[in-house]
Amino acid sequence: MHQLVKIMDVDSKFSDISKILKGSAVRELLKYAEQPDVISFGGGMPNPLSFPIKDIEDIVHYIFENNGAKALQYGSTEGVEELRELISKRLKSKYNINGKKENIIMLNGSQSGLYMVSKVFLNRKDYVISEAPTYVGAIAAFNAQDPTWLAIDLQKDGMNMEELEDKIKFAMKEKKIPKFIYVIPTFQNPAGLTWSLDKRKHLLELANKYDLIIFEDDPYSEIRFSGEPLPPIKSFDTEDRVIYMGTFSKVLSPGIRLGYVLANDQIIRKIALLKQGVDLCTNVLSQYLAIEYLKRGIIDKQVPKIVELYRKKRDIMLDSLEKYMPKDTTWTRPDGGMFLWVTVNEKIDTTKLLQKALENKVAYVVGTGFYPDGRGKNSMRLNFTYSKDEDIVEGIKRLGNVIKKEIS
Amino acid sequence: MHQLVKIMDVDSKFSDISKILKGSAVRELLKYAEQPDVISFGGGMPNPLSFPIKDIEDIVHYIFENNGAKALQYGSTEGVEELRELISKRLKSKYNINGKKENIIMLNGSQSGLYMVSKVFLNRKDYVISEAPTYVGAIAAFNAQDPTWLAIDLQKDGMNMEELEDKIKFAMKEKKIPKFIYVIPTFQNPAGLTWSLDKRKHLLELANKYDLIIFEDDPYSEIRFSGEPLPPIKSFDTEDRVIYMGTFSKVLSPGIRLGYVLANDQIIRKIALLKQGVDLCTNVLSQYLAIEYLKRGIIDKQVPKIVELYRKKRDIMLDSLEKYMPKDTTWTRPDGGMFLWVTVNEKIDTTKLLQKALENKVAYVVGTGFYPDGRGKNSMRLNFTYSKDEDIVEGIKRLGNVIKKEIS
Repeated sequence: MHQLVKIMDVDSKFSDISKILKGSAVRELLKYAEQPDVISFGGGMPNPLSFPIKDIEDIVHYIFENNGAKALQYGSTEGVEELRELISKRLKSKYNINGKKENIIMLNGSQSGLYMVSKVFLNRKDYVISEAPTYVGAIAAFNAQDPTWLAIDLQKDGMNMEELEDKIKFAMKEKKIPKFIYVIPTFQNPAGLTWSLDKRKHLLELANKYDLIIFEDDPYSEIRFSGEPLPPIKSFDTEDRVIYMGTFSKVLSPGIRLGYVLANDQIIRKIALLKQGVDLCTNVLSQYLAIEYLKRGIIDKQVPKIVELYRKKRDIMLDSLEKYMPKDTTWTRPDGGMFLWVTVNEKIDTTKLLQKALENKVAYVVGTGFYPDGRGKNSMRLNFTYSKDEDIVEGIKRLGNVIKKEIS
Repeated sequence: MHQLVKIMDVDSKFSDISKILKGSAVRELLKYAEQPDVISFGGGMPNPLSFPIKDIEDIVHYIFENNGAKALQYGSTEGVEELRELISKRLKSKYNINGKKENIIMLNGSQSGLYMVSKVFLNRKDYVISEAPTYVGAIAAFNAQDPTWLAIDLQKDGMNMEELEDKIKFAMKEKKIPKFIYVIPTFQNPAGLTWSLDKRKHLLELANKYDLIIFEDDPYSEIRFSGEPLPPIKSFDTEDRVIYMGTFSKVLSPGIRLGYVLANDQIIRKIALLKQGVDLCTNVLSQYLAIEYLKRGIIDKQVPKIVELYRKKRDIMLDSLEKYMPKDTTWTRPDGGMFLWVTVNEKIDTTKLLQKALENKVAYVVGTGFYPDGRGKNSMRLNFTYSKDEDIVEGIKRLGNVIKKEIS
């Protein structure tokens, strides 16, 4: 017999913010992705074949033989200096981004950067501008500050710039300056689209004109399969108003949780102060790992392998979509990154469709999860990097059949 | 010639919370601690000799040979199941704490737990109760929610329980129930004091009586040099109102950033939802490392070595204090952990004294940093685990001289 005990009423004690916290579509999906017979295009995982396991093992061996005590000790809140110096140099040589090591702070994954930047700038109900659709993790991070979203339609070559300027003026009229404009200009997650050079420059002009901050999230630039590289918005930034964020998740490993933010001194200082309360310092072993990964030039041998692996998978998915999707279905053709975006017949609600897809052993992320305002009902995000080649074909075939059945 | 550019006004854009963020005393101190000729009792670092470097190297080798792809991949937000299961079992067998793996969430260091729990419960100006003094990292974490502190005097055997009940009643009268009571009952940081069994039980009775949550932070229990082990408050908890927090920082490595919270389902669910926005998941490589550290029983071989190492250092510091401190100086005699607390002549302001101490090449953390309300002017925290044995003697000698000169 169980003893009857009084159970505490927890709900009444939660903060207002935590009362409004909701689960993300990606997360709920992961449960199904784990069933072995489901082919999942949900999640956002790099392919394990992209991890340089042997190189990492060598590096870790080297670290413990030479620098073990340091790699296991607390580190400074901003991160290991040598790593910040290496990143600063790489960003300069690769993208012509100017930023000293003092302008860089290492973080436990770039998700932490999304959270830190939002917490540093957003009061409740402050305006924040994003693309629509936008990264689901950004929605989760920013929503923890309970902001008001201005989600601007994402076109093939970047935001709808007229809509953007209208929304900025609208906010200004209310005397509430949008705190920042969050964008993923290259191989956007979830849409797989890339901003044109013109729109990149135009965005910075608008930011200069209206005195706004741009928060440029750039996790995928290194993973380009086709087309000409485009410079990050940060590389044009003469007024120090672009916060640039990078990560090692797609070029090394997401499990080691290592990202960084590059921004002006004042912003880095605020993030560091906040970080003392949030998680004190970034995983030091991961930082030493990244130092060797960069210093030994392994990154420049590994990235082409990742690109090769993913290009093939993208091509297989594009071919399969062509073959198995009904005519009124459209999709994006990403030049890099990990995702593409599918828009189905507007009568279809992909949230309702998911149950049927799962019955047919295929999974995706529903489009509404990527809109802060609940749009995207007839869309879905597909990840093409994780599944085996043959599973991509079979999965898209299953998905095509489910969609066809729905509209027939 | 530099081009003159307009520089953005960042300050006006910061959130109200980030405008009030301030640097911590510990952090500012770390700069001086890094000068090689300064003997620093500041910081809170384990001794590098306490790290089982060879064992970790073996484990990492094993992980990459057997489970490399998983250790480098994203993990679930709650953490690796096997690790949570191992922790659940250890807490049951060691402390009689009941909690299933579903009640445990892995975090990027227990600092993250301080932040998460505060964000999940605290609205601005909500009451939070703590010991006075309390852990500086808790002050940094909770202050990011801008709460109102009720800091209760810490006596030799725990909080002043009358003051505690008075403050609870005071808050209740204002219809603002304190959201939680934060305590470090064993080898408290910074005071080095340990709550008696009576006060542990009394605290839980008060929490039951007034329907309050206790947040029990327990980083040091394993590191006991002397005296009888005392059960965590969580082990008496029949109403599921104690949030228990542990860490691998003091028994394995702080650089791998690994801590956990054990609490009831609803609280774990809220922390997990928040974590999706804050940092998505905990370092997976670190979690696999901890799994092997526990599974192979290395922890139970390593902890006695750490205890031995630190006991000696504590004894050396206590002897040196006896020898070199002026008569009106008092200090605590910790049975474990990493810190002791020194109270000097009340005419001395340890913040002002620090400059002179640094001129004499010795460092400590000023007491006021550990009081949310600015008390502690004539006190300081000394760490006894990091310095070499001979440096402890020399450092305390220097410190004694600086204090003697100040009161002469």
